[in-house]
Amino acid sequence: MHHELIEHIQKFVSLDDSEIEMMESTLQKSNIKKKTHVLQEGQICNSMYFIVKGCMRQYIINPKGTEQTLQFGVENWWITDYLSYHNHSPSHFYIQAVENSEVIALDKNTLESLLVQIPKLEKYFRVVAQKAFGAAQMRIKFLFTMSAEERYNHFKNQQPDFVQRVPQYMLASYLDFSAEFMSKIRAGKV
Amino acid sequence: MHHELIEHIQKFVSLDDSEIEMMESTLQKSNIKKKTHVLQEGQICNSMYFIVKGCMRQYIINPKGTEQTLQFGVENWWITDYLSYHNHSPSHFYIQAVENSEVIALDKNTLESLLVQIPKLEKYFRVVAQKAFGAAQMRIKFLFTMSAEERYNHFKNQQPDFVQRVPQYMLASYLDFSAEFMSKIRAGKV
Repeated sequence: MHHELIEHIQKFVSLDDSEIEMMESTLQKSNIKKKTHVLQEGQICNSMYFIVKGCMRQYIINPKGTEQTLQFGVENWWITDYLSYHNHSPSHFYIQAVENSEVIALDKNTLESLLVQIPKLEKYFRVVAQKAFGAAQMRIKFLFTMSAEERYNHFKNQQPDFVQRVPQYMLASYLDFSAEFMSKIRAGKV
Repeated sequence: MHHELIEHIQKFVSLDDSEIEMMESTLQKSNIKKKTHVLQEGQICNSMYFIVKGCMRQYIINPKGTEQTLQFGVENWWITDYLSYHNHSPSHFYIQAVENSEVIALDKNTLESLLVQIPKLEKYFRVVAQKAFGAAQMRIKFLFTMSAEERYNHFKNQQPDFVQRVPQYMLASYLDFSAEFMSKIRAGKV
């Protein structure tokens, strides 16, 4: 039923049959329609979302009223607001489905109970969080050191299919340049 | 000997006496002189650093040849390049002591062995990484949504003592504005 998540976990730790069974009986997939929010600014984030299929994004609304995408999540990624999750504080972010998506929403109580029953999951979530943090540090480096065109080409080389999947304005804000500049780049006019 | 780290760990998980003893016999403090690097771009990052006393920073050198500080770490913070650490890939970052510092350098082999011997440390490192990632997401939000002056005032309110501890040019690059603008703000001329 959740073989995508089980497979992902098994890349980091080995689960035995009873543990897999426990996870499968505990977790369920949800369908999130395109444009639906699973988190809005001001709400407390009580879940982590594993993306089985589709695409989600985390964004903010900047003082000009424009949406600014800070993170995309596709298949086999987790997306959440860890600070709101841990501190039980109102979130500063929105999390929304970019495509019709299938996710496993893991709420705090369920996760804490799973971690007690299957302690080796701690390692899985540790490594996932550490790698996500490392990737965020790289993203900040790219924002500071690459030109807009370099950022676009770098992203396109790393994620060739993804560039076609998301609306241009979202990708432009993620790469921190205007939608107009994005159109020029894609038209080969830069 | 390492009561600062033990105390920090005990905020998240309880260690018994034998576990504390094991940690104390395994770990040792190192003194890192101001301006010394524990990681340079191109090197593989094999350790995580817990700051017992002092201040460290992670920075990059941007295409103009200017140092850009991406993260500061003070007492009770961990600092490392998680991507290089996990992927065994050359780092894109520098990690340097801003002040004479006392750190516990935890290399990968030692950490992996400690995690096997004291599995509950997985939880500690998971929560630390998740919170650090959450804080990094907030930092990106601030960079995108606050004016330079707002960023300075926000930082000063959150870390009143810290503003005096680090060279202005480092703090200016961390908050993403020029050292000249920083001088004006501090002189109350903005």
